[in-house]
Amino acid sequence: MREITLNEAASLLAEHDNFKILTHSYPDGDCLGSGYALAFALRRLGKKANVAVDGKLPSKFTYLVKNYEEQDFVPQYIISVDVAAPTLLGDSVMDGVDHIDLCIDHHGTNSIEADNRYVDSTAAAAAEIIWQLLQLLHVEPDEDIAGGIYTGISTDTGCFVYTNTTPRTHHIAASVMPYCDWREINNINFVIKTRAKVKMERMIYKTMEFYAGGKCAVVYTTLAMCEALGTGDDEMEGLANIPRRIEGVKMGITMREKEGGVFKVSVRTNDGIDASAFCQQFGGGGHPAAAGCSIEGDLGTVKKLLIDAAEEFLR
Amino acid sequence: MREITLNEAASLLAEHDNFKILTHSYPDGDCLGSGYALAFALRRLGKKANVAVDGKLPSKFTYLVKNYEEQDFVPQYIISVDVAAPTLLGDSVMDGVDHIDLCIDHHGTNSIEADNRYVDSTAAAAAEIIWQLLQLLHVEPDEDIAGGIYTGISTDTGCFVYTNTTPRTHHIAASVMPYCDWREINNINFVIKTRAKVKMERMIYKTMEFYAGGKCAVVYTTLAMCEALGTGDDEMEGLANIPRRIEGVKMGITMREKEGGVFKVSVRTNDGIDASAFCQQFGGGGHPAAAGCSIEGDLGTVKKLLIDAAEEFLR
Repeated sequence: MREITLNEAASLLAEHDNFKILTHSYPDGDCLGSGYALAFALRRLGKKANVAVDGKLPSKFTYLVKNYEEQDFVPQYIISVDVAAPTLLGDSVMDGVDHIDLCIDHHGTNSIEADNRYVDSTAAAAAEIIWQLLQLLHVEPDEDIAGGIYTGISTDTGCFVYTNTTPRTHHIAASVMPYCDWREINNINFVIKTRAKVKMERMIYKTMEFYAGGKCAVVYTTLAMCEALGTGDDEMEGLANIPRRIEGVKMGITMREKEGGVFKVSVRTNDGIDASAFCQQFGGGGHPAAAGCSIEGDLGTVKKLLIDAAEEFLR
Repeated sequence: MREITLNEAASLLAEHDNFKILTHSYPDGDCLGSGYALAFALRRLGKKANVAVDGKLPSKFTYLVKNYEEQDFVPQYIISVDVAAPTLLGDSVMDGVDHIDLCIDHHGTNSIEADNRYVDSTAAAAAEIIWQLLQLLHVEPDEDIAGGIYTGISTDTGCFVYTNTTPRTHHIAASVMPYCDWREINNINFVIKTRAKVKMERMIYKTMEFYAGGKCAVVYTTLAMCEALGTGDDEMEGLANIPRRIEGVKMGITMREKEGGVFKVSVRTNDGIDASAFCQQFGGGGHPAAAGCSIEGDLGTVKKLLIDAAEEFLR
């Protein structure tokens, strides 16, 4: 395994052909935007390149592949993009893959085994790295490439809100905007809410309760609530961030009832409160500011368990 | 009245002194950020400059004035910033002002009477124009100036989401970020919600009604609702965008009851529907996608007036 420079990564792309680009499970805007932008760019250079996605492409991102068709070739050079750890590589993505030639990522914790690794943790999104590679390879952006890059950087920064944003992020956005329909991309990812989503948010807010002197906010959904509203997983996206954003809240807990008497619990924290340590008490885990666990029981029991633990944890 | 160039506007600033900078009623992040950035910059050039704000500075924007103290002088040069129409100049702001020397604005419909006008409707925010003027005046940004510029462009674009954003907007953001605490500014303006704001949003969603086959969504607040929740103007900010974001909605109308039997109406539109033309029917104006007006009457009357006009307009 060799840590390489951006220039070396660009050379490896220029020297090889027949690329398979691996993205991570539960694919998001950055791994998809980066992966497809890279594939389109390699094709523009006369090479063959496919993107491997685990499961179905989320419907909101179908705009990324409107000009994409799978190419027929035997993969010779395997690249992972935006994949932080081997466990995030789904089985279907790894089908026929015995090693990774090049790992391109922006997660400082990257633990992918690859012949060559370029990890830049100052990049707000993997798409920032892809953009820089395309500059070195002299690939002019087109709508597909620019749309992928814009999608990656905007979704990984909450549209330039999150603290990972840098001046470079903004400069890259400015560079790709003239080539893609960024207005429509923003509409899809940041503006439009379905009526079902609005109903779900209203219901979520109704359930909000505060504990630990306002430092903990708890919300929940039950199967009965979802059935009454006719809402599914699409409406659930982003709900876990709602309680954490309330003024004074250090720990936001979102409980979602699943089939079989289980609650899926998402914990989001501010100000250095360790969400992962909190969830480990219940057999879960995750990142310092975003973690989860599953707890069996009815609403009242599970909620009391979490509130008691939160009050103890935040003392 | 004379339409002038950016260079001429910069020269007028360089040639004069003792500035009074007028902002608009219900001051927002752009008029305040632009106004204070301009005042701090003029002071850096050794001149005297005050900002006139109608009513109380919204508490969320107090960070703009942490190094600002009113200066004692007789105003000699009057500038309006981000003020689209004379009706938006509050009485307290106009105290002692008999004419406006220079109007700087980005509203294409600007109707301010001023000796000199620089209106650039391609600017996403008035702060973009102020930034360009400061470049011409060779003012290096400091935290106060950069914070004002970042506040103006980020709040007027919903943090780079809205369709008025341009590559220039991003380049300016990149230029000022190193000088100001843009992370905290984003926290204040886009991340943290007060509990009062959450309550207000819940109440707003309860009032939501759809017309014109779902193309028009209308929400409102009354004085009684605000009193019941103990909410003020601080909680009102951003509410105007709620109805426009619902899937299928082309025109979102937000009505806010004010003292004296008047409703302040904010109209936000998608897909090229002209909000400004719509509001001009009621003596208001603004941008193509974001405009406003004031209508006298009780809730039922004003709502019916707006709905009838919207159904006609969207036909």
